[in-house]
Amino acid sequence: MLNSHASWDSLFVHADIATMARGRYNIIKDGAIGVAGGKIQWIGYSNQLDIDRVRSESCPVAHDIIDCSGKWILPGFVDCHTHLIWAGSRCNEFEMRLAGASYQDIAKQGGGIAATVAAVRAASEDELFSIASRRVRHILSRGTTCVEIKSGYGLNLESELKMLAVAQRLAQSFDLHVSPTFLGAHTLPLEYKGRADAYVDLVINTMLPEVKRQGIACAVDVFCESMAFSRDQTKQLFTAATDMGLPVKLHAEQLSDSGGAALAAQFNALSCDHLEYLSLDGAKAMARAGVTAVLLPGAFYMLRETRKPPVQDLIRLDVPMALATDLNPGTSPVYDMAAVMNMGCVLFGLTCEQALAGATINGAKALGLDKCKGSLETGKDADFVVWDIDGPADLSCQVGITPVNKVVIAGKIAYNA
Amino acid sequence: MLNSHASWDSLFVHADIATMARGRYNIIKDGAIGVAGGKIQWIGYSNQLDIDRVRSESCPVAHDIIDCSGKWILPGFVDCHTHLIWAGSRCNEFEMRLAGASYQDIAKQGGGIAATVAAVRAASEDELFSIASRRVRHILSRGTTCVEIKSGYGLNLESELKMLAVAQRLAQSFDLHVSPTFLGAHTLPLEYKGRADAYVDLVINTMLPEVKRQGIACAVDVFCESMAFSRDQTKQLFTAATDMGLPVKLHAEQLSDSGGAALAAQFNALSCDHLEYLSLDGAKAMARAGVTAVLLPGAFYMLRETRKPPVQDLIRLDVPMALATDLNPGTSPVYDMAAVMNMGCVLFGLTCEQALAGATINGAKALGLDKCKGSLETGKDADFVVWDIDGPADLSCQVGITPVNKVVIAGKIAYNA
Repeated sequence: MLNSHASWDSLFVHADIATMARGRYNIIKDGAIGVAGGKIQWIGYSNQLDIDRVRSESCPVAHDIIDCSGKWILPGFVDCHTHLIWAGSRCNEFEMRLAGASYQDIAKQGGGIAATVAAVRAASEDELFSIASRRVRHILSRGTTCVEIKSGYGLNLESELKMLAVAQRLAQSFDLHVSPTFLGAHTLPLEYKGRADAYVDLVINTMLPEVKRQGIACAVDVFCESMAFSRDQTKQLFTAATDMGLPVKLHAEQLSDSGGAALAAQFNALSCDHLEYLSLDGAKAMARAGVTAVLLPGAFYMLRETRKPPVQDLIRLDVPMALATDLNPGTSPVYDMAAVMNMGCVLFGLTCEQALAGATINGAKALGLDKCKGSLETGKDADFVVWDIDGPADLSCQVGITPVNKVVIAGKIAYNA
Repeated sequence: MLNSHASWDSLFVHADIATMARGRYNIIKDGAIGVAGGKIQWIGYSNQLDIDRVRSESCPVAHDIIDCSGKWILPGFVDCHTHLIWAGSRCNEFEMRLAGASYQDIAKQGGGIAATVAAVRAASEDELFSIASRRVRHILSRGTTCVEIKSGYGLNLESELKMLAVAQRLAQSFDLHVSPTFLGAHTLPLEYKGRADAYVDLVINTMLPEVKRQGIACAVDVFCESMAFSRDQTKQLFTAATDMGLPVKLHAEQLSDSGGAALAAQFNALSCDHLEYLSLDGAKAMARAGVTAVLLPGAFYMLRETRKPPVQDLIRLDVPMALATDLNPGTSPVYDMAAVMNMGCVLFGLTCEQALAGATINGAKALGLDKCKGSLETGKDADFVVWDIDGPADLSCQVGITPVNKVVIAGKIAYNA
């Protein structure tokens, strides 16, 4: 029987729990979680608790007791790769492409990422905050308790700072945890056409120092690809970020093998993301350096790609695999982590357990937050979702249903279905 | 200015509307819909109304005026092919397959459709109703206002009638329209192994007459496939149904070309569904007979099929194409019509307009309900959804977001987000 001196803010009891500690289900049937100060103080079997005593008003052990009979508790989703802040819509481009327009046609009409950059530059911070808030409310209602948000649609000092300021306001305004990433090197802005090195200089010498000074980004990301920034430019950017003490991460090997993964490994990157064209050598370098692989099946699906990331190599080499939405207006307007888990299984062949690990503990690893988030263990943040499901596989198996019962963040019920 | 004598129960005003009449958007910018007696009494531009007069209490033209500024109104989704009533879960099988188990392994353990048949037979009508009600509430909240529901997991007289009775109770208990289909010839029950003709006799001579007598099915469906019922057996079943005055529909050409489409055309079937292996001759026969093609991209996706239905042939031959969820526990646990529209576009190459027509007016055609449902036209049922979107393409373009504002069925607000 549990130490009767325990005193908790809340106790979630009679739930089946998958803790996801060390990336495995670790199922506790009829389990309970005691929460205080926003942390998990205790997790175990309900029958280890003296529930009558816990319930007794003369001996308050928990202020709130939440009966979760017939439900599951899983760690909240950690969506470790999003471009959640944008203005404008590019669904019209999706429609144009399906009706036969080419990417060139769309680019000629000012479409593609340039359209989003123009819309973000034109939007005020308040407008961006209001639009992004709707998206945050939505993902929170679908079980995301921690989200990474990248800049990268500003592409000048003022607008990149504006995006990161919006991320900061989102962090202050919502219960969910926001991890902001500076992605000044997302794509070359039109006004720098033919002058990529000059733009890299601007990012390194003007943007990065100001981002660092304001302390408004947890990491620095780069898009390393033939159509974006070269391996050499990426190296310069990584060197500058590392010198400032900012961890790095990379969009790499999405459309070709640029050797980005090896470079990321060299800089002990938090994560390397996309990876459809990852080579075995690249995967080995990631394994050695402990870089998390972030798979983004939403973009793979929406772009109708056929080359899959080398999932079996990553498993064999024990590279942690995270899954994320890549939420963005063009190539992955995907909001729902359960939908991403489903695509990870159906399109990339992950098991349901790997998909859930990817959406929780390995997502936390990709953000350097696995010490406090991503699994249900004593001392970690009390971020979890109560689900109305028969088992964790339901989330990966079903499409277009959201069986959320409650979303709990830092011990507080942030959403009640 | 509109006739001022009009008197409506409600008026939805200042919405952008896509009527989907004749399968096209037919967009009305700043439109309005006047509803009375559950029907659309008037649809047009808001500025055709004398809103001040409409609002005036001394001259009540509409009891409720709903301002839909900044929103879109589209016809409610007609999901014309579902197996929504089932007991048990087969997500464990999804998990087993991903972990390496073969279909044979799963079948040996009593899995597959046999597991669902056993669970449905064992469940009481009340249990089935309670489980199915949760699903209905869910699809209604995502914009489905009319749903077809098939029997076919009972496979004996008692259990098939039980399923249809549940469908009837759902129809009585929810605002959404339910169109029940008798699918006794879904698969051969285990106890008839090797005696398919005897089972077909049972369906024709015992089940079908009772279904007809009770008047609890709007159509008769058959699964015509090498692993289910032959073309000859299908013909016997169709002949019997037609003799009783019941319209027919067919699961055909999903895994092979069995010539089912031509047979369906011969019997003037309402629809022919799946159709990945549809031949050009089959498509021509459907065109001649006016049979609607029901595409089910959810099953295609979940089964990782590669052969797509001949969409371009169907378009060229002017065969109406509907989209449906095929909601079922095994091959298509897909609830959301917007997700199906997205898959129709991404996987089958439909345009956004074709996808929306497929989810609305052509779905209604597949149920023989296009005279009263599926598009927004004077005299039709007032079944529509108010969406918080920038345009109809948003529904096909985005994944894992449900921007429903209100679901209106027969003029009544059935769901308010």
